[in-house]
Amino acid sequence: MTLALDSAAQDLLFREARTANTFADEPVTDEQVQAIYDLVKFGPTAFNQSPLRVVLVRSDEARERLVGLMAEGNQAKTASAPLTAILAADNEFHEELPTLFPHFPQAKDVFFAERQAREQAAGLNAALQAAYFIVGIRAAGLAAGPMTGFDFAGVQKEFLDDDHTPLMVVNIGKPGEDTPFPRSPRLAYEEVITAV
Amino acid sequence: MTLALDSAAQDLLFREARTANTFADEPVTDEQVQAIYDLVKFGPTAFNQSPLRVVLVRSDEARERLVGLMAEGNQAKTASAPLTAILAADNEFHEELPTLFPHFPQAKDVFFAERQAREQAAGLNAALQAAYFIVGIRAAGLAAGPMTGFDFAGVQKEFLDDDHTPLMVVNIGKPGEDTPFPRSPRLAYEEVITAV
Repeated sequence: MTLALDSAAQDLLFREARTANTFADEPVTDEQVQAIYDLVKFGPTAFNQSPLRVVLVRSDEARERLVGLMAEGNQAKTASAPLTAILAADNEFHEELPTLFPHFPQAKDVFFAERQAREQAAGLNAALQAAYFIVGIRAAGLAAGPMTGFDFAGVQKEFLDDDHTPLMVVNIGKPGEDTPFPRSPRLAYEEVITAV
Repeated sequence: MTLALDSAAQDLLFREARTANTFADEPVTDEQVQAIYDLVKFGPTAFNQSPLRVVLVRSDEARERLVGLMAEGNQAKTASAPLTAILAADNEFHEELPTLFPHFPQAKDVFFAERQAREQAAGLNAALQAAYFIVGIRAAGLAAGPMTGFDFAGVQKEFLDDDHTPLMVVNIGKPGEDTPFPRSPRLAYEEVITAV
């Protein structure tokens, strides 16, 4: 037992979890999304900046607009997923920093006065939170289908604003019956990790 | 029970885990790093591109060079951590795509012929993998201390090459006795998640 995490949890979050392209016909409730958020909000970000923002696409009208902005290969699954979420980075996250990082309230002005610095930090840290969110979806016993094949400018214009940069769109739900293809190979330890 | 993940695992990975600034005097073995990698390598990336690369800073000489490139506030903890890892994005990940994504071996040329497209994809997807890696460190019963306060150009020059962009540096080890400050507040659900 090299890991402290129990084997069932390892399977649930990583070893047996798969990206889903089809879903069972069962809704994903706001209560489930809240439970996911209330777990993964504790994942670390720099200065606790927490720049991830999420738009749940709930209405038929909004879903239709979103599907039209997805790459062709992502349209059918986005049209049929129980829930689809747009994950975005808030480039004005620094406004919350005095609350989020009370130990050093000056961080807002010292490190993040410039929009470019904020965009860079928000992009990285919201991506970390997107990964925590994917792990959280799996922790809820659901499958995630993260996608970056869509019209980024269109999604920003239709669902966000100039201060929010889309990162990815994620389909969420109980996985469907069919697994599209066997799991792809991973790089060997030696190909990824070196020591100096 | 809204979540399928057991409560002890929720605590280990998110609720009770804290970013560590001091560490116990106990080594982190290659066996532990391999167990972490063998778990989190299954986290999803676009086209399974898996662009994260990790440099373990093991030797005294390398650690000294790295400490000199860290921001002042990150030097002492990096000098004393049992293990420090440099996490980077491989901007030439597309060379592995025909192996990593055998279902669509053309992805390499269709989507990633341009360096700029690769850098953008590698930055996002390596950040997802960095988050999985942080979760994996916690799954091993260890604490992570991720840092972005360092000389990025210097770390790239000293430890990487033109094809590898540093993302963050992570201290790894059993947490020390002292907790520096109470956990910072998180944004409320309503501040982060909206529905349309």
